Amino acid sequence: MTALKAAVHQQAREGADLCDLGIAELGQLMREGSISPVDVTTACLDRIARLDGSLNSFITVTAEAALAQARTAEAELAAGTDRGPFHGIPYALKDNVDTAGILSSSHSKIFADRMPQESATVARKLEAAGGILIGKTATFEFAIGGPSFDLPWPPARNPWNRDYLPGGSSSGSGAAVGARFVPGAIGTDTGGSVRWPAAMCGITGLKPTYGRISRRGVHPNTYSLDHCGPMTRTAADCAAMLGACAGHDPLDPGSIDEPVPDYLAALTGSIKGLKIGLVRHWYEEEATEEVIAAVDASVEVLRGLGASVEVLTLDPLRDYVDAKTTISIAELFSVHEADIRTRPQDFGKLLRSRVMVGGLVRAEDYVQAMRWRTELCTRMMAAFSRYDLLVTAGWMAPADPAIPDGVDFFKKRQLATMPFSLAGLPALALPCGFSATGLPLSLQIAGRPFDEATVLCAGDAYQQATEWHLAKPDLD
Amino acid sequence: MTALKAAVHQQAREGADLCDLGIAELGQLMREGSISPVDVTTACLDRIARLDGSLNSFITVTAEAALAQARTAEAELAAGTDRGPFHGIPYALKDNVDTAGILSSSHSKIFADRMPQESATVARKLEAAGGILIGKTATFEFAIGGPSFDLPWPPARNPWNRDYLPGGSSSGSGAAVGARFVPGAIGTDTGGSVRWPAAMCGITGLKPTYGRISRRGVHPNTYSLDHCGPMTRTAADCAAMLGACAGHDPLDPGSIDEPVPDYLAALTGSIKGLKIGLVRHWYEEEATEEVIAAVDASVEVLRGLGASVEVLTLDPLRDYVDAKTTISIAELFSVHEADIRTRPQDFGKLLRSRVMVGGLVRAEDYVQAMRWRTELCTRMMAAFSRYDLLVTAGWMAPADPAIPDGVDFFKKRQLATMPFSLAGLPALALPCGFSATGLPLSLQIAGRPFDEATVLCAGDAYQQATEWHLAKPDLD
Repeated sequence: MTALKAAVHQQAREGADLCDLGIAELGQLMREGSISPVDVTTACLDRIARLDGSLNSFITVTAEAALAQARTAEAELAAGTDRGPFHGIPYALKDNVDTAGILSSSHSKIFADRMPQESATVARKLEAAGGILIGKTATFEFAIGGPSFDLPWPPARNPWNRDYLPGGSSSGSGAAVGARFVPGAIGTDTGGSVRWPAAMCGITGLKPTYGRISRRGVHPNTYSLDHCGPMTRTAADCAAMLGACAGHDPLDPGSIDEPVPDYLAALTGSIKGLKIGLVRHWYEEEATEEVIAAVDASVEVLRGLGASVEVLTLDPLRDYVDAKTTISIAELFSVHEADIRTRPQDFGKLLRSRVMVGGLVRAEDYVQAMRWRTELCTRMMAAFSRYDLLVTAGWMAPADPAIPDGVDFFKKRQLATMPFSLAGLPALALPCGFSATGLPLSLQIAGRPFDEATVLCAGDAYQQATEWHLAKPDLD
Repeated sequence: MTALKAAVHQQAREGADLCDLGIAELGQLMREGSISPVDVTTACLDRIARLDGSLNSFITVTAEAALAQARTAEAELAAGTDRGPFHGIPYALKDNVDTAGILSSSHSKIFADRMPQESATVARKLEAAGGILIGKTATFEFAIGGPSFDLPWPPARNPWNRDYLPGGSSSGSGAAVGARFVPGAIGTDTGGSVRWPAAMCGITGLKPTYGRISRRGVHPNTYSLDHCGPMTRTAADCAAMLGACAGHDPLDPGSIDEPVPDYLAALTGSIKGLKIGLVRHWYEEEATEEVIAAVDASVEVLRGLGASVEVLTLDPLRDYVDAKTTISIAELFSVHEADIRTRPQDFGKLLRSRVMVGGLVRAEDYVQAMRWRTELCTRMMAAFSRYDLLVTAGWMAPADPAIPDGVDFFKKRQLATMPFSLAGLPALALPCGFSATGLPLSLQIAGRPFDEATVLCAGDAYQQATEWHLAKPDLD
């Protein structure tokens, strides 16, 4: 443990803000009996009540149910019933994740009153692991159309500067973890929607392997690209949250029946001898100078930890982005066709235009994009015969201003998150610096299929050696 | 070995027609030194020269190259170099399989002069296994549009009655094996194109698991549904031929890296205790009474061998056929778009109309068909938790007359081959009777992914107990 972490730990024992603690520290203090899940839940709810009015990270806060769950967890832990590392931990769910009897709006007017009968598998797993659901977070409309200013709820704001956006589409999950309202949240990621807000909010977000976490009960964006993923403050906390919700689900047609390892046990702190490929050409033209410098510095940290890092060339980022875009708009249209025909006025302006363009895609274009996707992925997989991990920028720039049309990424900026979306590979975004304007910058580490363990181990080793993830925004 | 087989064997030793022997018998006699690959190749070439003029099963006969390969095999076997069960065995390839320096026309005017530089992986594997390529066989145009009477080559005829068709699209491969021109041939199967001609020609045809045999160098029909498969006279010979050409190929994006077992060793002759599900509702309304009776009788044979057979209900056949059709026409259009725009007159009338309709499919229709496919397959896979094999009819009726528009299967007849195409599961068609008009009828046995061994073992056990596969058409 670093000196800073030990100090935080000590402060918490002495009654400092419980919201400053991550999953690992909370778990330890709960088991020591220094704090209880009710204390932590109360602290989270108080902080949200005090500060979320200007951040809009939550659509629904489930205060009463959370306190009831916290009391149960408190009693269980006191009685020696230990459900594992997520027991007693408060968390949030993106609002496109179904929760029985709790509004699950996907941040859309169309689902503004939607109360599902059943919870999504990921929600049920986290509940079964003893987690405490604090609420449901803002998203871009249906996890794609945003940032939008014409929806029933406003877009979330960036906790590092409320005049900026938190990224998306898992905007509220990113903002809520960045603002230390909860130590963990679930986001969904189709082309980067966990990693972008993680990058913008200075937190750690994992898009696991495609099929690793069930999407049953999660409203789809692009069937063949959708993933759920944990968003926390550290790689170690991602490991704890992933362990609590990963696993095969026969009710998700994309779910894959692979054993779930002990991700926490994989955090050895060592990456000595790991071979890392640095995909520099994906970001060196598009990214800001600050991002390039931050990634360069991170590479030196990884080298200092004993990993070898070589620059490698893969297909141009543009190729992945084009394939992803064709696939996404076609599948998106298939999800929303009925509503876009009968009630187009109930979509936000931005999503409406994105959905409608998908109706123009021919099957042939989609087939060719899928074939191209296979080629790109085959070539990327070949790189993993030489490298254990690939590293690239998490995002090309710091956060965008929170004004309509303030985000131009579809036109100007290419998304270094998309190659790993197309390939379905695990990819972690984690803080690696700050812009001169005080906004977080992000590094991305990707690994082989179902090798989240090595990705998280590398992220954890990096965080043991750096303190970017410990910085916190001043919200008061 | 049955008494009849032993008699055939004895006749061969005494100089009877070598063309009557299958792969297993030829292999044994070659290793005994009773016959040589040159004898067998010469017998095949003579028989083709004498009889194929009225059957049109071959587009190209590679007589000289075949004799050269046969002499090499003869020398190798004499020197004790044994490449395995396919060594010295004559075979044919469907003409959509690329062969270096040999016309590979796909039975189309568009490829009427096409001499590939490289052979397909399946061709190279059979050559490496010591097989002797006798020639390239007729197909429906591009393995889909047929039977057609307006192509550079006439459609193949049925060896059981030249006024009838041999099925398709692997028409020539079916006819050539049925006519005893070769003991084995490679066909391709997208919706039933190995199993249909096998059924019509009274032979045994296997569509293996999707990804089991490489399609590298095989002209595509529908990327996500295309399979190569062996067509022989018995399940045991299918096992020998599959063993010679199965295996992972990184150059085929659909190829799967699964170990190749010893399929011949799996032929234990016993299916005692196997649980078989009979999917009767797929054929009981559509099939002729003769087919229904023949399948019923086959089920009694399987029961007599110690398997349990229960009737089960899956989704209606129509659902599989609709999903397959949408997927196929969309992918088919993507294959032929450039040619259909620039030289539509060079397609046969039938294929032209089938390709053009694919241009009308929207990406959304394709996406929905693929999702529906996943659902159907998930439910079929669930049945395999209760059954080791599924059995249904191989085809709904005996062969159709060889007249233009004589085949109305797209309108009137549903294809019981398609569920296993969509699911990518191994499925074997094998002879199970004859119509009153003297045309073969067929049974279909399907198994779990990559469990060709059990499917072939059941087919072999059935053939040990029956003699339908031993019947031969009188061509003289």
